[in-house]
Amino acid sequence: MKDWLRFSVAFWHTFRGDGTDIFGSPTKRWPWDDGTDSLTTAFNRMRANFEFLQKLGVSFWCFHDRDIAPEGKTLKETNANLDAVVALAKRLQEGTNINPLWGTAQLFKHQRYMHGAATSPYVNIFAYGAAQVKKAMEVTHELGGQNFVFWGGREGYQTLLNTDMKKELENMAQFLKLASMYKKKLGFQGTLLLEPKPQEPTKHQYDWDVATTMGFLEKHGLSDQFKLNIECNHATLAGHSCTHELEMARIHGMFGSFDANTGDAQTGWDTDQFLVDIAEATLIMLTVIKNGGISPGGFNFDAKLRRESVDVEDLFIAHIAGMDTMARGLRNAARIVQDGALQSLVDRRYSSFDSPLGKAIKDGSIGFEELEQAALNSEDQVPPSGKQELAEMIFYSFVQ
Amino acid sequence: MKDWLRFSVAFWHTFRGDGTDIFGSPTKRWPWDDGTDSLTTAFNRMRANFEFLQKLGVSFWCFHDRDIAPEGKTLKETNANLDAVVALAKRLQEGTNINPLWGTAQLFKHQRYMHGAATSPYVNIFAYGAAQVKKAMEVTHELGGQNFVFWGGREGYQTLLNTDMKKELENMAQFLKLASMYKKKLGFQGTLLLEPKPQEPTKHQYDWDVATTMGFLEKHGLSDQFKLNIECNHATLAGHSCTHELEMARIHGMFGSFDANTGDAQTGWDTDQFLVDIAEATLIMLTVIKNGGISPGGFNFDAKLRRESVDVEDLFIAHIAGMDTMARGLRNAARIVQDGALQSLVDRRYSSFDSPLGKAIKDGSIGFEELEQAALNSEDQVPPSGKQELAEMIFYSFVQ
Amino acid sequence: MKDWLRFSVAFWHTFRGDGTDIFGSPTKRWPWDDGTDSLTTAFNRMRANFEFLQKLGVSFWCFHDRDIAPEGKTLKETNANLDAVVALAKRLQEGTNINPLWGTAQLFKHQRYMHGAATSPYVNIFAYGAAQVKKAMEVTHELGGQNFVFWGGREGYQTLLNTDMKKELENMAQFLKLASMYKKKLGFQGTLLLEPKPQEPTKHQYDWDVATTMGFLEKHGLSDQFKLNIECNHATLAGHSCTHELEMARIHGMFGSFDANTGDAQTGWDTDQFLVDIAEATLIMLTVIKNGGISPGGFNFDAKLRRESVDVEDLFIAHIAGMDTMARGLRNAARIVQDGALQSLVDRRYSSFDSPLGKAIKDGSIGFEELEQAALNSEDQVPPSGKQELAEMIFYSFVQ
Amino acid sequence: MKDWLRFSVAFWHTFRGDGTDIFGSPTKRWPWDDGTDSLTTAFNRMRANFEFLQKLGVSFWCFHDRDIAPEGKTLKETNANLDAVVALAKRLQEGTNINPLWGTAQLFKHQRYMHGAATSPYVNIFAYGAAQVKKAMEVTHELGGQNFVFWGGREGYQTLLNTDMKKELENMAQFLKLASMYKKKLGFQGTLLLEPKPQEPTKHQYDWDVATTMGFLEKHGLSDQFKLNIECNHATLAGHSCTHELEMARIHGMFGSFDANTGDAQTGWDTDQFLVDIAEATLIMLTVIKNGGISPGGFNFDAKLRRESVDVEDLFIAHIAGMDTMARGLRNAARIVQDGALQSLVDRRYSSFDSPLGKAIKDGSIGFEELEQAALNSEDQVPPSGKQELAEMIFYSFVQ
Repeated sequence: MKDWLRFSVAFWHTFRGDGTDIFGSPTKRWPWDDGTDSLTTAFNRMRANFEFLQKLGVSFWCFHDRDIAPEGKTLKETNANLDAVVALAKRLQEGTNINPLWGTAQLFKHQRYMHGAATSPYVNIFAYGAAQVKKAMEVTHELGGQNFVFWGGREGYQTLLNTDMKKELENMAQFLKLASMYKKKLGFQGTLLLEPKPQEPTKHQYDWDVATTMGFLEKHGLSDQFKLNIECNHATLAGHSCTHELEMARIHGMFGSFDANTGDAQTGWDTDQFLVDIAEATLIMLTVIKNGGISPGGFNFDAKLRRESVDVEDLFIAHIAGMDTMARGLRNAARIVQDGALQSLVDRRYSSFDSPLGKAIKDGSIGFEELEQAALNSEDQVPPSGKQELAEMIFYSFVQ
Repeated sequence: MKDWLRFSVAFWHTFRGDGTDIFGSPTKRWPWDDGTDSLTTAFNRMRANFEFLQKLGVSFWCFHDRDIAPEGKTLKETNANLDAVVALAKRLQEGTNINPLWGTAQLFKHQRYMHGAATSPYVNIFAYGAAQVKKAMEVTHELGGQNFVFWGGREGYQTLLNTDMKKELENMAQFLKLASMYKKKLGFQGTLLLEPKPQEPTKHQYDWDVATTMGFLEKHGLSDQFKLNIECNHATLAGHSCTHELEMARIHGMFGSFDANTGDAQTGWDTDQFLVDIAEATLIMLTVIKNGGISPGGFNFDAKLRRESVDVEDLFIAHIAGMDTMARGLRNAARIVQDGALQSLVDRRYSSFDSPLGKAIKDGSIGFEELEQAALNSEDQVPPSGKQELAEMIFYSFVQ
Repeated sequence: MKDWLRFSVAFWHTFRGDGTDIFGSPTKRWPWDDGTDSLTTAFNRMRANFEFLQKLGVSFWCFHDRDIAPEGKTLKETNANLDAVVALAKRLQEGTNINPLWGTAQLFKHQRYMHGAATSPYVNIFAYGAAQVKKAMEVTHELGGQNFVFWGGREGYQTLLNTDMKKELENMAQFLKLASMYKKKLGFQGTLLLEPKPQEPTKHQYDWDVATTMGFLEKHGLSDQFKLNIECNHATLAGHSCTHELEMARIHGMFGSFDANTGDAQTGWDTDQFLVDIAEATLIMLTVIKNGGISPGGFNFDAKLRRESVDVEDLFIAHIAGMDTMARGLRNAARIVQDGALQSLVDRRYSSFDSPLGKAIKDGSIGFEELEQAALNSEDQVPPSGKQELAEMIFYSFVQ
Repeated sequence: MKDWLRFSVAFWHTFRGDGTDIFGSPTKRWPWDDGTDSLTTAFNRMRANFEFLQKLGVSFWCFHDRDIAPEGKTLKETNANLDAVVALAKRLQEGTNINPLWGTAQLFKHQRYMHGAATSPYVNIFAYGAAQVKKAMEVTHELGGQNFVFWGGREGYQTLLNTDMKKELENMAQFLKLASMYKKKLGFQGTLLLEPKPQEPTKHQYDWDVATTMGFLEKHGLSDQFKLNIECNHATLAGHSCTHELEMARIHGMFGSFDANTGDAQTGWDTDQFLVDIAEATLIMLTVIKNGGISPGGFNFDAKLRRESVDVEDLFIAHIAGMDTMARGLRNAARIVQDGALQSLVDRRYSSFDSPLGKAIKDGSIGFEELEQAALNSEDQVPPSGKQELAEMIFYSFVQ
């Protein structure tokens, strides 16, 4: 089970989430955190991170450059701060089996990125963003990170009235090309991952969903250089089930890693809750099994305590519930696969494509004229039942 | 104005819409329609169609094969019915400037297509669908149709539990390839158009939105053989503004034709209402002007009278309001373009990319290392205001 | 378990659902049903209903007047048709323990109700609707029905531009008053139930959700004469969780009966699927237990086979899965109640209101001035953790 | 026009909005604001407020207690801070025609209110909230405020699993009763207003929408002591059109004041944008005219500059566009009312209720039995067209 369930703690939620929301001030003050942006506090948070990982028995963590180290007055100073914290993290990793599942550059919080980074209308911001990604990739490499993620929270628009979408999309493609080139130069072996999200904070984010992001990569010749990091809550915000997004990526060979969280089915924003629904976890794990696992990706708990959950023990409860849920899901999914009834139902449905006619369609040896002849010659047949209720009954009989 | 506003009446809504909804029986009975599926009634409807087009002063109409002629007991008989109605339509067209804007095959209503046509798990249904598209394309060609549309209402799934999405997507691609090959063989010069819609009647339709559909075409090497027919109500169901979808297609050279309708901002299904919002029409026409028009596409009123609108005059009122709205939108948009203030605001925002640094990024002559140097060397700059409120003020000052 | 789980089959879905959807023709043709509207076929359907109930071991059924008997040319003829079918149903009930859980009048399908029944702008339609409810209540009484339901599918509006909402709401209140008066006159002992739904088929339905419907009843002095029939899919269409609606009704003593179905979390229309989610069922049953059961209400499977499910066995599979799900939910909920940890967590949170200050607030003996003194005198206290993750962990540990 | 358009500037957005969003740091730094929480800065902001009001020519402003003055270490200190700022505001008002349209207590931002104020499970928080409302009402009174608003951003729940909804609703009712009692004691003549919002920041807020809030007031005997402050963006988040909410309040005599803003039709959170849509403004003003104005309420610009709008001139542009939009809407609405065609269309629809039968229904002199006789005796009549397209055509012909 450990091989499959490569869990990861998200530094930003677990160690930087302070309970602030759009209508509310911070609610959390952890014993190790004085709430300042000093380097000392940054070190304390990193130590707390490792203590937490070890107590939980989790081997991975994920981070943005700017959650782990404070921004300085200049880029140079900022980089020096980052180096200092990374040096500590490296020391803390020593002798453990802990590594970053992935690192990323935070290109959305600072005012300079308010119009985007790769898609900013301002060339100096594009350059600044590139410099930041370069450095973040370097420190991820330094720490033995297994992947590098791009989440373009500001890579989109607030209104088309002031936007040149064509230029922004071209700049985004160029940014990613340069990132991929630098990765090779750096010798970083990890996977580059794009993380789709439809909107929030922007009205429209270019990496809207899995299909949109794959289409963009395909268009710009980048499909073989990137995979996707898929988050359940982003799936549902885009109007898809989480499984849809995972399956869409899987069948295209693009399922790279998973942000294990969930949204609220009745709210229109990213709630980033810990995923506790067993049925959902079972569906997710069915895709993971079909994918043969997701290594070097993993299950990153991109989930935050509720604003009102202010006890240190709540951090443990939430992560343990998240881990248990995914484990129950894996066990259920494995039993569904072993049982085979669900897969048989699917296979039977498509078996007519194994006929000579089906094969001729697939290999392109016949066209519309031959198909018309086939249709004219055969009696009109009504297709059989889709057996959805049976499929659901089978599925839920394994959910426990 | 006539050159730009290539209006079209949608046969299915205007002549086959009977007011049925998911909870209600028909409410409309037109004087020319006895409600039966006879050929005689089909002829009467077609005559009414031409009378209506001529009274409205509209030169285009759109149709599905199965709205204009009844299904027979066999495909052969069905084709014969279609030929008979098409012959009448052709005679009625003579001496007029009326032609189909586009034709299409109805691959969603009959029970045989309940699991899809191109994406049906059953090979005989795939063949039947191919035969139907072949014939529909032939009659569209025969009538001088300027485009041919694919709307895959059942090309999707109701649940992933019983679905092999990979096979279905491959079959859909193959179906479209064969359609494109047959078009060439037939000598049909019109444009092939895919019409995105996210869902309804299926839970998930593969042509989800513009970006998804373009990505699919790109993936399967079909981008140069298809364009898109974009419907406002489908845009909003997918979580996009109508303008977003139009612009996304336009900047990729894929904006083929437009289904002029609107949804209700508070309902989650396709209401297909006549578009009467002047601001929305102005936004749409801005894209149309930027696109240099949409010929050989046009503005198809894919909109239906409300169920409770049962007077013949309501048909006229609705279409006239629709035409007036688009004309007001065009006039507003033309004035915005002539004024130039809005475009200037946009151009100014992106002007820094005309600098040497901007050009070097665009032509690929510099990478992350040079960009890092640029960022380290320059002072941190905060980007200027996005001027959204000003852009909105300018835009609405032209809406009248 | 049988005492709690008063299951009911919905005649309209199970025996009149033919697979039609807004883009599709019928897909189902049951062996006992020739698809006509004849009385003979109505008799056959009723016999099939009883055979199905007995095979399933279910003791209740629900019906609209117009699903069980065809509409005639006049109201008199229609009533005679209804009497004939009801006579058969009564004979079929004899010697069984089968009764209607509830009956209702179908005031939404026929063209005459296109603008509403109780809220139609036309007084003759109001009268016709009243006549229909009167008769439907009589036959429900005749058959030993335990409740009578009002679902006002057309009691709302499509646009406010043509609507006098004030008049419509007043007429609706008057209609319900007259219904309640007639109930007493008839001697019908069953409960009158309103069924909230936010929209579809109308853009806005007046019985939007539980709170709106209760407010309307309160406003018009009808609160003690009606309870609510709550449907999960209607809850989620209104933006609420199903549990929210059930709890809102329960704590106001208005939870009358339950339409056991579910929607699709990603679609914006009523999908009326069989509820198979175990966690959802557990939540529902927690409310049912807190309510001390819902008798004389019950669990009506207001759910339909998917359009593609065309086998007779699918009817059985769907209902059996629905019954099993509710039974699993009840077992889980009972264990949660017995365990007590979840309730303790809640009770602890509110225990400070048992203090003298809390009691003084509740009994109205103190006002803002005393409360200000209390606040000024006490130190500012930060409230404790909400323990949401713990509550979720406890809950899901019982879901199986 | 000035009499009708009682505009108000919202202090919190205009003077405290700093561009922070859930993924981003502040972007705005106004010349008069050093970003600290000092009293000196609070004074500067208040002076800026009056300068802004006077430059705009606007006579009203709205405030929360905590935006205008900083929180101290104790409630006593906090109240003293508030008194100091209020004293300044009072001086600044002198010799002007400026007053608060309304004041309110901010019961949602501080950690102490994370579980609610009136609905907090903790009695000391209830007391603290009461003390804060008492003081806020006093200073509103002191400043000549014309209304007092309650927006219960935290009066709701995040999960029902840890919530006793019954207790919370009862406490909320008691809180409002005490507020109303204290208002009388204080001699405050202004109107008390509840502001509905469905959710955000909570998953579910008890004042969900107009109907829910009216029902709650009715239930607790508070209907004659409160009216409603209605916000467009809250309407659409609840799944209603803005007009629906305004009309629902108007016809019940509960339309108190208006928060003039708008949301984004494609996003699921509160964007609080300036309302610039002319058609929407026309609809709103139609309701305002039918209501005979909304004095002593007004049009509060509860709207914020976009995060990216960082110029001082953007504050002016946004408010001027907002004012112009409402003024254009009023002019359009007045012309629609003068024209009379739209109202005639509505009146004609309901005229059958002026018949003897209609009157007998209204005065309760007939019941279901007489109505059944009427239905049996009359021929079945199909109601006429609803004329929605005509109504829309009329409406949009006046939008300019």
